[in-house]
Parts: sequence; structure tokens; C-alpha cells
Amino acid sequence: MAGNSFGTIFRLTTFGESHGEAIGGIIEGCPAGLKLDFEAIQMEMQRRKPGQSKITTQRKEEDEVVFLSGIFKGTTTGTPIAFQIKNTDSKSKDYSHNKEVYRPSHADYTYDKKYGLRDYRGGGRSSARETANWVVAGAIAKQLIKKIKINAFVSSVGDIFIDKPYQELDFSKTETNAVRCPDAASAEKMEAHIKQIKKAGDTVGGTITCVVKKVPVGLGEPVFDKLHARLGQAMLSINAVKGFEYGSGFCGARMKGSEHNDIFNPDGTTQTNLSGGIQGGISNGMDIYFRVAFKPVATIMQNQPTIDKAGNSTEIQGKGRHDPCVVPRAVPIVEAMAALVLADFYLMNKISKL
Amino acid sequence: MAGNSFGTIFRLTTFGESHGEAIGGIIEGCPAGLKLDFEAIQMEMQRRKPGQSKITTQRKEEDEVVFLSGIFKGTTTGTPIAFQIKNTDSKSKDYSHNKEVYRPSHADYTYDKKYGLRDYRGGGRSSARETANWVVAGAIAKQLIKKIKINAFVSSVGDIFIDKPYQELDFSKTETNAVRCPDAASAEKMEAHIKQIKKAGDTVGGTITCVVKKVPVGLGEPVFDKLHARLGQAMLSINAVKGFEYGSGFCGARMKGSEHNDIFNPDGTTQTNLSGGIQGGISNGMDIYFRVAFKPVATIMQNQPTIDKAGNSTEIQGKGRHDPCVVPRAVPIVEAMAALVLADFYLMNKISKL
Amino acid sequence: MAGNSFGTIFRLTTFGESHGEAIGGIIEGCPAGLKLDFEAIQMEMQRRKPGQSKITTQRKEEDEVVFLSGIFKGTTTGTPIAFQIKNTDSKSKDYSHNKEVYRPSHADYTYDKKYGLRDYRGGGRSSARETANWVVAGAIAKQLIKKIKINAFVSSVGDIFIDKPYQELDFSKTETNAVRCPDAASAEKMEAHIKQIKKAGDTVGGTITCVVKKVPVGLGEPVFDKLHARLGQAMLSINAVKGFEYGSGFCGARMKGSEHNDIFNPDGTTQTNLSGGIQGGISNGMDIYFRVAFKPVATIMQNQPTIDKAGNSTEIQGKGRHDPCVVPRAVPIVEAMAALVLADFYLMNKISKL
Amino acid sequence: MAGNSFGTIFRLTTFGESHGEAIGGIIEGCPAGLKLDFEAIQMEMQRRKPGQSKITTQRKEEDEVVFLSGIFKGTTTGTPIAFQIKNTDSKSKDYSHNKEVYRPSHADYTYDKKYGLRDYRGGGRSSARETANWVVAGAIAKQLIKKIKINAFVSSVGDIFIDKPYQELDFSKTETNAVRCPDAASAEKMEAHIKQIKKAGDTVGGTITCVVKKVPVGLGEPVFDKLHARLGQAMLSINAVKGFEYGSGFCGARMKGSEHNDIFNPDGTTQTNLSGGIQGGISNGMDIYFRVAFKPVATIMQNQPTIDKAGNSTEIQGKGRHDPCVVPRAVPIVEAMAALVLADFYLMNKISKL
Repeated sequence: MAGNSFGTIFRLTTFGESHGEAIGGIIEGCPAGLKLDFEAIQMEMQRRKPGQSKITTQRKEEDEVVFLSGIFKGTTTGTPIAFQIKNTDSKSKDYSHNKEVYRPSHADYTYDKKYGLRDYRGGGRSSARETANWVVAGAIAKQLIKKIKINAFVSSVGDIFIDKPYQELDFSKTETNAVRCPDAASAEKMEAHIKQIKKAGDTVGGTITCVVKKVPVGLGEPVFDKLHARLGQAMLSINAVKGFEYGSGFCGARMKGSEHNDIFNPDGTTQTNLSGGIQGGISNGMDIYFRVAFKPVATIMQNQPTIDKAGNSTEIQGKGRHDPCVVPRAVPIVEAMAALVLADFYLMNKISKL
Repeated sequence: MAGNSFGTIFRLTTFGESHGEAIGGIIEGCPAGLKLDFEAIQMEMQRRKPGQSKITTQRKEEDEVVFLSGIFKGTTTGTPIAFQIKNTDSKSKDYSHNKEVYRPSHADYTYDKKYGLRDYRGGGRSSARETANWVVAGAIAKQLIKKIKINAFVSSVGDIFIDKPYQELDFSKTETNAVRCPDAASAEKMEAHIKQIKKAGDTVGGTITCVVKKVPVGLGEPVFDKLHARLGQAMLSINAVKGFEYGSGFCGARMKGSEHNDIFNPDGTTQTNLSGGIQGGISNGMDIYFRVAFKPVATIMQNQPTIDKAGNSTEIQGKGRHDPCVVPRAVPIVEAMAALVLADFYLMNKISKL
Repeated sequence: MAGNSFGTIFRLTTFGESHGEAIGGIIEGCPAGLKLDFEAIQMEMQRRKPGQSKITTQRKEEDEVVFLSGIFKGTTTGTPIAFQIKNTDSKSKDYSHNKEVYRPSHADYTYDKKYGLRDYRGGGRSSARETANWVVAGAIAKQLIKKIKINAFVSSVGDIFIDKPYQELDFSKTETNAVRCPDAASAEKMEAHIKQIKKAGDTVGGTITCVVKKVPVGLGEPVFDKLHARLGQAMLSINAVKGFEYGSGFCGARMKGSEHNDIFNPDGTTQTNLSGGIQGGISNGMDIYFRVAFKPVATIMQNQPTIDKAGNSTEIQGKGRHDPCVVPRAVPIVEAMAALVLADFYLMNKISKL
Repeated sequence: MAGNSFGTIFRLTTFGESHGEAIGGIIEGCPAGLKLDFEAIQMEMQRRKPGQSKITTQRKEEDEVVFLSGIFKGTTTGTPIAFQIKNTDSKSKDYSHNKEVYRPSHADYTYDKKYGLRDYRGGGRSSARETANWVVAGAIAKQLIKKIKINAFVSSVGDIFIDKPYQELDFSKTETNAVRCPDAASAEKMEAHIKQIKKAGDTVGGTITCVVKKVPVGLGEPVFDKLHARLGQAMLSINAVKGFEYGSGFCGARMKGSEHNDIFNPDGTTQTNLSGGIQGGISNGMDIYFRVAFKPVATIMQNQPTIDKAGNSTEIQGKGRHDPCVVPRAVPIVEAMAALVLADFYLMNKISKL
């Protein structure tokens, strides 16, 4: 059944709750013969890991990936690749106070109503812990489509936006600061803002922009699996995401056709790229770029009124270890999900024509 | 394989090119025993139909739906419901000039590269003609989940926006004007703007907002089939869509957690609804609302430079019958896709717990 | 949802009841660029068609296939291929007496109980009429994998068996007699037997053997999509099928390992082929052969006691137009389903390794 | 992609090689609220485990199942249930001689050709070790559909058959002997035969019959997911299986319609049950019974000529720890796969009608 799998051919199926014994997944459809770079996989995990800097949560997770199958002597065998990540720092006691209480803007209430019960230790299945699985699979996907370059970065935090087109940014700078913003000046402001927010026991939202370069022409499947539709689904699966736009996006809705059309060069490239590298749901070889909106983290370090299971009014205490701003850590997650989409369409496209 | 099907249990599979003999689809998973209201289906078709007013294309399509199976004496039998819509007004000659030419910001180039050939009569499979299929299936989905009320409407055309929260709108007014905007004053301005754009041989984008009321708690499946992720995929499948946001959307990315959290009332409803009726990917019973951005139609009535298959520079003539603004006609399409998503999750949720 | 689709990449989704307006289907995943031989498709339809000889039903169906999409100038475009077959000879009146009565060993009772209602005109969705759809799709699949040769034939009718190994048969003789048995002597006996059975108003079962030659090594997917497991599912989907065996089959269950193992030749072929061309679920390049058991047709020209919907005892009259023995007409159906399985695995195998 | 998943709603996805670190799987679609009996699960594992008696392999596997997610305080939560079984007795050294050699009638050759490489430690992914995963999932499926009683047993070993109809057998006797044959006299003969075969360093095939009682009416989905078609696929997925028949099976192909039809009783049951409890692919409430043919195990304790990867003739030594007859141990596997099929259709049927 639907829900825990993503992809048609290159397909990830995941499991795990934030405070269970382990999380993990099974990757199907990875062709045999791919020599894996395990260090690169672990490095992606490192990027996603909490506790990396003063502006992220201090919760420590080892996030060591163990592969259980599908790889022989470092090379994929064509059989399913299973992996597992232990939950080493899952102090369940911290969360016992959540048992009867619904945290505002969390999934506690909806899970309880849907399933009749829930694993109340942390977010359970709805925790962003799950995204560690995606980063593992995404890291392998990246290696499968290694000519394609996926660059995500923080483009805004609260009201602080990078005020340059992405073409003026140097993506090699993204990892040089804690906010993962390739524009140094903006990064500084964002970091200061997050620190201030944290001090106030509050949280703040932001956006991530992702630019994908060197995409071959032809990826994406009409009609319901348009490349941008699957990218949208992928991004909207990430915790806290409230919006997705690609190419001209919401701005495009204010434009005229005579302004918006991308005129062809003789080689099939286009003079402008308001299409965002996708026409009719299929990549056209130009840069794919899209933007993802993240709401502020719901767990704040302030007391909030709420209700318990019986419908009684109560108060939720602001405590625990949580990010004041999730977007810096979400950068590798956005890249991972983009890689999963692209790897799947890459394989699918190999059998599009005779 | 992926691409032409949408949904897991309530599942639509479609076929058809804009200028082939017919388009149509197969709906699987509709439970037996649903007494169908065929007039309601045809009325939805009527809403989507071109040639309805001066601000839409004059291309005339009968759009008469013929059902071929799965219905006995007006009631669904549990077997697949096949339907078909003839392409009666498909003057193929109009399009012969497209054979060698790639229209800017259309799918001509990408289809040709992906498949090695294409049906160059109109948009072929990438034509918005396909959405007529979705409206048929969506109309049946609406009847399956008839307690849920889906209200889409045009919320902006170019730079003209409704400047009211949706709560102040009377959705019964949506169909009273050609733009499908429930706010009379905005509608008037939008219509005037579209007429002016049309006169200039140009096109303009816009946004559609959709508000879904009386959604039961529990629809949506973690992790990759979150309710909003599937809504996003559904909307991004619609031709010309460039963005999707729900609840607080991109604005939410500028907010603080203390502002954004929806505090519970004792009955489980929330005081605010920045979550947009969905928490952790699952409906919480509050209104679901989302916004969809449409780029301006690529076919304009102006000559544009372009290239042909051989890479020679050429010019494309502005002629044919096309909408100056697609959003009014896209309103029933947005509703149809929303209905498909909700009907699928509605059935899925029936087996979530013992 | 499951049920009306077959295949993962090369995927057929069908619709239709025996006495509705039409039956048909949608084929997804057929690569672009396949030049179709429509005569070959119609010829397969001809083979399946009722009313071909004195030993088959006299029900006449035109079985003319109309293609509605996915083909441009005779070549596949990569988009879904929709087709339709009208039900021209569906004298619904013949079946009105079935409305309240459950025919023994038909699906009347189970459909009624499962769905709460049924289309009682003929077999509805459970009719073998559906297999016409499979033959269309199978005919296209055959053209996609045209180097692979699929030869089905009648190997037994009642107690009359071909008493030769298949290697001694000349498959070019299969279509030379009404029974579709390549062994002339057996064919004669079978035909005589069927005539006698028909005269008695009775029906008789039989088996079909299928030999597939020139299969490339590597088709089939571990673990649940083993080549023979999908062949089994395919064959067991055919109406009236009660059993499936491949290679040594049920006889193999009586053998010893030292007798059963197929010893390799230096070129990777095997000296014997008790494996039936499949090892570990994957084709090894040797002939694939399997046998399919068909029960006698349930509709007999004799009166039978039965019950009506209310549970009252009643009698069903032996009348109508039905085959005394279904196996001759099932030969092209077996081939079609085998072709669907092989075409799907053929495409899938193109992305098994880097 | 296809291959490692089984089921549509109640869906098992597995991973693992016989000599990797672990095998395991993810079960999706199990409704929330099922209180699990872990002892019952472990007991099923015990039934499948090697090394249980003198007539099975002495290879010892702990087969301890560890659950990693989807269960909270012993009850399913509706989220994916992941489990894992360590490969504790995987003496890889035993298999190093297989590196370059293709064992006759194993999957060595086909895997190597399909994937370009293979995990040559034991059977890798093609090993029957995988079936331990199925037994875990099947044990949970059994608990979900606990009113349905699934009884598999050995019905033949080599030429020794139980010579009674199943109605005369007492299934409570199945586990009382090493062969898992409920007929004491036959069991004794079978056991003696297996011992003799083992002494000769040979192996022998056999059949398993499975009788499913108390199946509700309505399970199974037309057209390609007929109940018996999915049972067939399930059984043919089991290692060494060469054939499947249900109800009258291959014998039915020799019968006449007047003999074969099951006449109804007023309550909808039938006087005979040649249909095997399934009509039109849907359960009718009568006993479902089917028979599965297993070839003799390919690994024999005798030297056999074979080839290596380079095509050189060589000899394979008869050594290692393998079953002389696989059918006794396959009994719980047959039951597990039947349970998976039935649980899936059980859930699916809950949404067949309004």
C-alpha cells in the first residue's frame, strides 16, 4: 500500500519511529555494478545530523548507516539494498509527558484519531528522524546519476532573503557556514537572526532553493508523473514543508505569455529559463530550479495552552532539544529527495524508446 | 509503469491525444453500489469546456462522455468504469505547420527528444485536452465523498488579487461570472484585464485557491503520501502549473513558531488554521486550503522567433484558438484533482485500523 | 488498485463486460518507435474469435479492434495505447433468465455476494470475452519481443493426450486443424471427442502446452516476480484454468535430485531441461515450456438444479451458445498472456545492470 | 519496481542474502490495533527452521526475529512493521569453492548473466533463507485473519502419496511427525524413504496440499488478481516449486462439465467442491484447497560435472548441509504465503462496496 515507498523503479521503502530501536529502509531497483562510495554516503548523513552547530538542536545521533544486503565487495548486486540506522540517543523518558497531550501543530492529534493509538515517544513515525533514511537512499541515487549536479541551499530565513539570482552564487560556499547559505553576507544575517530567535525560545521558518545542473533531456513521464509533479510530491513529503514552486513559480502567475516564453537557441537551449528546465513535465536540459517553503518548527521553548486526549485544557511546557530553524539541516534532505526523483526518471527513461 | 495513472485504490488511468480519435480513461476501485448522477458529471464537463465565454478559447468541443463499463442501471458495479470522449472538433489541418517547428515553452522539443518522434497535431499527449478525463473521474469521486465540499475559485489574474481572506467569500457566487471569482469587484477587474490581454494577442497567468470543507479527520498516509504531498502532485500535474502551497504556504516560511502554531480548542478544532487542515500529512478536520499558480498560456497571438527540428531559426505565427487566460477554465480541473486525491485517501482510511 | 492491470512496465489495464457496449484496454510502457503490424494483431483476434468452426460456439463477434491513441502513422509514440472492441453480438435478451438465478460453477453467486449487485447479462466482467483484450495487448507485446517465439497448442482434451515430447512436434501444424493440436493423429481423435461431447450437450476440459523459444538469458525478477511465478499468475487469470506447471512440473515432484539436475554444456546451455528454461526465477536461454489445465466449460446444454437469489431451488435450462471445449480457442490467449509477461520482463531487464 | 514486494494493501517487501549480515522485511498496510502474539510468530519460525530433525539439514539458524518498528506495547500502530533476522550460522568459507563454478539447476548462472556479478556465498538472494522473511509476515497475516484456518501438509514424497481425500485427514496430526504428513501410515513410509534417499547422497521431491477453511465469501479481485492467480504466484515464488493446481486441478482437465459443476445447496454452499472454494476468482465460502509441486533439491551429496565461469568443464563436490527433501520444511512457508494472499484480499474486500 501507499505511503512508505517512493519511486517506481528506483524505489525506497522506509520504516521507523524516532524513538524505536532503529529506522531504515530498502532500496529496490538500483542496477547491479554500481561501485559505492561509502564515505560519500556517511558525509551526507553528517550534513543532516543534528548537533552540528550552535544553531541546530543539540540532540546527538550517531547516524551510522549499516548496510545489510544488496552489496557485495562494495558493489551493488541488483538485489535490494537494506540499511539501518540505530536510534542511539532516544531518551524516551523526555517524552513521557506527551502521552496524553496533543502538541499544537504536531501530528499527535491526527495520528491518534487515524489509528486509534500512537507511539507517543517523540514524533513516532511523523518525526523528521525519518528523513535520515532518505539521505541514505539519496546519497546512493546521487552516485547512480553522478553527472547530474544537485545544489540546494538556504535562500531565506524569516524575512531575510538572498537578494541575488542563483546564477551569481558560488555553490561551493554553501557548506562554509552554519546556515548553508552560499551568500556570505546573507548567511551572517540569517545566523544572527536564528540565534536571536533561539534566545527567545522561538523558532522561525525559511526557504530552500535547489538548482540542478547537467540534467539530460528527457527525464519525467507524462501525465501524472511530470518531473516537477514528482519533485513537488517529494519536497512536500519533507516535514514542515508548506509550499513548492519551480521555474518562475508563483511569480510566473503574474506574468504575460510574451514575457514568460523561453525562446530557443539553435542548439535547443533557451535564452531565458522561466520554465525551470522542464517543459511538459520533461527535462529540457536547462537548469532545473525550485524553491521549497518551510514553516517554523512547531516545538517552541515557550509554554503553550493545549488539550489532552480527554479534551481537557492543559499547558505544554517548552523543553527538549529542537532546532530553532530547520532549514539549514533540511538542505541535504532536499537534495536527497531530488536525487531520488531524478534517479528514478533516469532509469525509466532508458526504456522510453526502442 | 508510472505516468498515466493517478491514485492507489481509487485509481484513474487515462489515454489520449488532443487530435486523436478520442480521449478517455479507466477508473478502478470505485466501490460497488454508488448510484451515479450523470447530469452532475456532464455539468462538470460543461464547466471545463472551451468556448463558454468571450474570455476563453472559441474552440468547440462537445465533450460528451460515454461510459462503456462498470455501471449497470446507473449504479457502479465494482468493476472498472471506462469512459470515452470523442475529439469532434479536432481540425488537424490547423496544426500541420507545427510539424517541424518547436513552439517556445511547449512540450514539442522535449517529447521529440524523449521519444524520438511525436504526434505533432496540437499538443498530443501534453495537451490540456487530457484534463477533460480528470474532470470525468473527479466528478465521480465527488459523488463518492459527497459530504466533503470542494470549492475552487480564481484568486488572482496577473496582478489583480482578491484582497480578502477566503472566509469572507461566498463560494456560491463563483459560477456567476466568466472568471470564476466569487468576489464580484475583483471578478470585474480580472475580466477587463483578460479582455485587454486578449486584444493585445497576449496571455496572462493567475492563481486558483481551493478550499475543502467537511473533510473527516484521518485522511492522508504517512510518509510519502501525505495528504498535501499528493494534493501537490495532483495540482502540479495540471498543465501550466508552476507552484503549490497549502495553509500558510510561502508566507509561513517568514513566520515564527509562536505565531504559526494552531492552538487547540477542547473539541480538537484549532483556533487558527495556519496548518491548512493538515497536520503530519493527515487531515485534522479543519478546512483544507491551498493555492495553485498558473503561468500564462504559451501560445500567444504574436509572432515569435523559434527553431525547427534541424536547428534552423524560424518564426512561429500567432494563430489558432487559445485561451488568453487559463485559470477560469482550470477551476473545475483543480476541483477534480482534489476530489481524486480525497476519494483515494477516503477509501484507504477505511482500513487504517481494526 | 489491484485487479484490472497486468504488468509492471509493459502494463495492460482493461475494462468491459461481455454485454456492455464495448470492452477494451490501455497499454502503458510500450516504447516509442515500434512500427506496428495491424494485420498481425487482427489475425490474433481472429484466432481467438468464437464461431470459427463446428467445435466452437456459434456466437459471432466481429472483434474489430479500434486503436484510439498512442500510435501515430502506424508507429508507437510512447504514450498509452488505448483500444476498444465493440460488443456487436450481445443479445442481452438471451440472458434475462439469469437475473435471479445462480448458474452452477459460474461467478454469479460470488459477484453478487462481493459487490451486492451484478451485471447479470452474461458473465459480465467474469466473462471470457475479456480475454479478447489480452489478445490485443499480447499481439503488440509479441511484436516488441519479436525474436522470442511463443508456441502454444492443445496437448490434451479429456483423456486424449499427445503422447510425444514437444520436441517431436511441428508447431507450424498447430493452426491446420480446428483443435489446434500439432499432432494430426491426436487432433483427429480430439475433434471427434469434442463433437461427441457437444452432441451430448456436455463440455470437456483439456490442457494447453506452451513452448517459448529463443528467450534471452536474464528475464525474470527475484523474489516474488520470478518468471514462472508471473507466468503462473498470468495463466491462472485465464477463465477456467485450474492448474499450471512448468518444466518437470508435478512429475518433477516424484523425481530424485540426481535425475532432475540439468548438467551444463560448456556454452551454458544444459544437456537436459527439466528446469523448463528457468533457474531461480530467471530465464537461462533454454526453451521455456509450461502446461495449463482447463476445466470443462460450466455452461452445459443440459438442465441442472440450482438456486435463485432468495435461496429457492430452481432449474437452469441448458441453452445459449457456448463452447463444448474451450481449449482450442484458449491457445492464442495463452500465447498472449505469455507475451505480456515476457515483454514486461524484457523491458525490466534492460535496467538490471549498469 | 517489481520483485521484492508481495501484496497490494497488506504488503511485504523483503531483503537479504543467505550469507549477508541479516535478512528481513517491511510489512505495510497492517491495520493499527492488532495485538500481536509474538510467541505464535516465533513458533512459526521454529517450524521453518533447519536442523529440526534427522531428515532436515543440520545447518543451524537461530532465526530470532527482531521487530524494529510499527509496534508499540505489543500492538500494531498502522506504521510499517520492520523486522530482521540475523544470519548467525553463515559460515561463508564453506561456499568459497562456488566462486567460479555454476552449480547445476541452481541460480548461479542466471544471476551472473543477469546482473554481471553475484554474491557467490551460498544462494545469495536466491536462497530459500529468504522464506524465513515470509514466515514472519505470514504469521502476522494469520493473526489478522484469525478466523480463517490454513492447513498445509505433505501430501506426497517421491512416489509415496496419501491415498485419502483431505476430508478424512486430521490436521491436528500434521505436526506430530517429522514429515508433516497428517496420515500416520504415509508419514512413516515417507520418512523411511527420505532417510534412504539421504543415505544415497540424493534428494527427492514432493507435494504439499493446503486446505483453507472458514474463508469468507468475496475474497479475490477480478481479473488479474483472481484469488487462485495470486495464490499461484505466491506458491510459485517458493524455491523449488514447479507446479500449482487448485480444486480439481489437472484432473479437472479430464472431466466433463456435467461431472464438474458444483450444484448449489439452498444456503449457497455447494454439494461438491471441484471449484476448490473459488468461482470466478472470488472465494465462495467453501474450503479452498490447492496442491504445490516441489522438485528435488538441486544440491546433492554426489559429485556432478559442471562448468565454471570461463566455460571450462569441472566437477562440483557433493558437500555442505542441505535437506534431502524440502517439503516438510516448506509446509509453514506454504501456509505463510497463503496467509499473505488472504490477508491482502481480506483488507481489499472491505472497500469493495459502499
